[in-house]
Amino acid sequence: MSSGPAIQTLPGFRDFYPQECATRNYLFAQWKEWCRRYGFLEYEGPILESTDLYRKKSGDEVVEQLFAFTDKGDREVSLRPELTPTLARMVAARQRDFKKPMRWFSIGPFFRFERPQVAKGRMREFYQFNCDVIGEDAEQVDAELISLAIDLMVAMGFSADDFVVRVSDREAWLHFAREAGVAEEQTDPFLQCIDKMERQKEEITAASLSELGTSLDAVKAFIEEGAQRVPRLERLFVSLKAQGKDSYCEADLGIVRGLAYYTGVVFEIFDKKHGLRAIAGGGRYDRLIHNLSDGKADMPAAGFAMGDAVIGNLLEKTPEAKKRLEQYIQEAAAVDVYVVIASEDQRVAALAGVDQLRQAGRRVHYPFAPMKVGKQFQAAETQGATAAVVFGDEYPKVSVKDLANRAESSMEGIPAMLAAVEALLGQTEAGGALD
Amino acid sequence: MSSGPAIQTLPGFRDFYPQECATRNYLFAQWKEWCRRYGFLEYEGPILESTDLYRKKSGDEVVEQLFAFTDKGDREVSLRPELTPTLARMVAARQRDFKKPMRWFSIGPFFRFERPQVAKGRMREFYQFNCDVIGEDAEQVDAELISLAIDLMVAMGFSADDFVVRVSDREAWLHFAREAGVAEEQTDPFLQCIDKMERQKEEITAASLSELGTSLDAVKAFIEEGAQRVPRLERLFVSLKAQGKDSYCEADLGIVRGLAYYTGVVFEIFDKKHGLRAIAGGGRYDRLIHNLSDGKADMPAAGFAMGDAVIGNLLEKTPEAKKRLEQYIQEAAAVDVYVVIASEDQRVAALAGVDQLRQAGRRVHYPFAPMKVGKQFQAAETQGATAAVVFGDEYPKVSVKDLANRAESSMEGIPAMLAAVEALLGQTEAGGALD
Repeated sequence: MSSGPAIQTLPGFRDFYPQECATRNYLFAQWKEWCRRYGFLEYEGPILESTDLYRKKSGDEVVEQLFAFTDKGDREVSLRPELTPTLARMVAARQRDFKKPMRWFSIGPFFRFERPQVAKGRMREFYQFNCDVIGEDAEQVDAELISLAIDLMVAMGFSADDFVVRVSDREAWLHFAREAGVAEEQTDPFLQCIDKMERQKEEITAASLSELGTSLDAVKAFIEEGAQRVPRLERLFVSLKAQGKDSYCEADLGIVRGLAYYTGVVFEIFDKKHGLRAIAGGGRYDRLIHNLSDGKADMPAAGFAMGDAVIGNLLEKTPEAKKRLEQYIQEAAAVDVYVVIASEDQRVAALAGVDQLRQAGRRVHYPFAPMKVGKQFQAAETQGATAAVVFGDEYPKVSVKDLANRAESSMEGIPAMLAAVEALLGQTEAGGALD
Repeated sequence: MSSGPAIQTLPGFRDFYPQECATRNYLFAQWKEWCRRYGFLEYEGPILESTDLYRKKSGDEVVEQLFAFTDKGDREVSLRPELTPTLARMVAARQRDFKKPMRWFSIGPFFRFERPQVAKGRMREFYQFNCDVIGEDAEQVDAELISLAIDLMVAMGFSADDFVVRVSDREAWLHFAREAGVAEEQTDPFLQCIDKMERQKEEITAASLSELGTSLDAVKAFIEEGAQRVPRLERLFVSLKAQGKDSYCEADLGIVRGLAYYTGVVFEIFDKKHGLRAIAGGGRYDRLIHNLSDGKADMPAAGFAMGDAVIGNLLEKTPEAKKRLEQYIQEAAAVDVYVVIASEDQRVAALAGVDQLRQAGRRVHYPFAPMKVGKQFQAAETQGATAAVVFGDEYPKVSVKDLANRAESSMEGIPAMLAAVEALLGQTEAGGALD
């Protein structure tokens, strides 16, 4: 074995110790739970894909930010930067096997090769939640996706004071561009210019816009008056209101989304207090599956994605949300029962008790090596145990102690102990549902 | 956008469509659930590490099978082939922050660059469950890990007729090697020779063993009589019996594990009927963390790993296990309630009903676009709905239909509808626990 300085985590990559992993799992659990309620099915693709899959969507320039390399079999491959091209490939390959509309979601790691900015939450490896409805062009889908995103936020403890969903219509912008005389081949640069406007110096935007054949004044006027004029957004708000979600949303033509492929309603979620990057974003992309699959599949689609970085940051900054997260972390670590082995002569009996408690769905710790009884009770407290079960020389007499109020009772044998523990912990919280 | 033949999944990589993803999730859920009951905490490391991290453990030859490449920052990096080196790095970096023993587990993707053999379940990207106890040298830990592995197998529907845990002691083999006169520097090749014995032609093994200074006869005699003679295995079986697990285990010195770093009890799980590769394997490795961390941390440890390929194969081949898996897959896809929109005039009311049902934890579908009522009921059945709720012209009168027995009742308004649905579906199965 070689020696030398200790090997470090690569820059932009993270170690998830149990506490950080519990935070990650909290996000995963919220994402999964709301997808369950909305009737979405989970899928997953490979972490590595042909680099061509990404070139196809976004051209060579995207390869700059890809974690791309040549494998030992001389293939140009990339760690995936996003899921949509994989989704399009999968859907095109088996499009006849699934009833439409398909409601699909996925949670997994993604990669980009850029300078890591930990403070801003830009990592080289990050998690992302993707949620898409495929094979349905009804406008209802836009409201459904936005509603799901809002339910997620509210379940995590965020209120309308904390975040806003800014909703826009890409088609309204395409209409504006045509009316304003922006050349058709300049549509993408025009949309990108609008997308960057809020982060760009005004004179630079103004210069770009006049080069593109329009003006900053015209664009500003459109944004200010625009939203009320867009019938599709009016209809969207009727649905959002019916689903109890309108108060979290603003029609706002300032949103266009940078990517070229959106075709209808687009939206981004922002925090209201901390000026973080967008929490989530998405919209309708009716032609992308057709284009990515070389015409093999032609299905309308809409979806959105949420990464773990910005929302993780916001969880830390928002008291109610942080409280819920911390409760989850605490519950994820706490054991139900600590089995105290007061006499090593009864270790075998205690092991049988441990096994029976676990078969009943309880989370159980016990000392692997002989340990003083006082230390065992300390361990029980440290590990957040609700009950202690004591196996000692008086076995088959066993005692059960409520660690909250120190109340203790004793009984004969393991079945009686199990009943006492169930009575103490409450039948209702028994077992962990397989999800 | 470029054209050309459709881009394929890379060789050895898999697409997880919803059904395959549900199978994967079933494994994940079992792994997580038993780790919960045993009081293990989840952690995760990066998917990419310095190639040196793996060289350090296993020498340059391991790099042959690594998914290794040079990144754009000129670093030699690898997609992780296993988790133990990452675990050692993480533990060494923060060893004082955690109470010992640490009970940690992890579930994630791993990679190897070798010829994919799909039929044998050898993929380039695979999932693996890792489960370790760190900072505790008590023999009890060996039984604990084996017991957890058995509980997993039994929960998935496998019986003692389907699988066996073959348990051995690496130290007994080291003792044999010393007694038989195998040179100390030949210990690793000797252990590897024993490890390969069952898959190797006898004359080749015999030749290797005599070259190493012993004989096939001596080795065979040791294996046949050995297990009964090893006191550590005797003690192990006392614990396994107490935990109700002895009938699934065999003391069997034919197991040594190929890797050099094991120092005590080692075990592998095999199916009994199909001759598949090992389902899981592990053991005690008291010096590995010291070696991998350049002496920064020195902690005894034991653990095991289980991949998704062999167990996935065995699930398909074992009727009781397959039945449980299929039930899980079916439940993972089924919606609770289908909301039928019998009149588009009542879509807004229906959306409010959908939202309220979801807030109550129910999994709900409804038609995104106008659809004939008959087709909606068809969709409800296809999606495995238990109840249908009908919003039509008679709103605020709503009707709730039990799709199993066609019983129908009607009520006034959404709160009454919610109560009727809860009565039908049963309060007990409401909501999905966040895990």
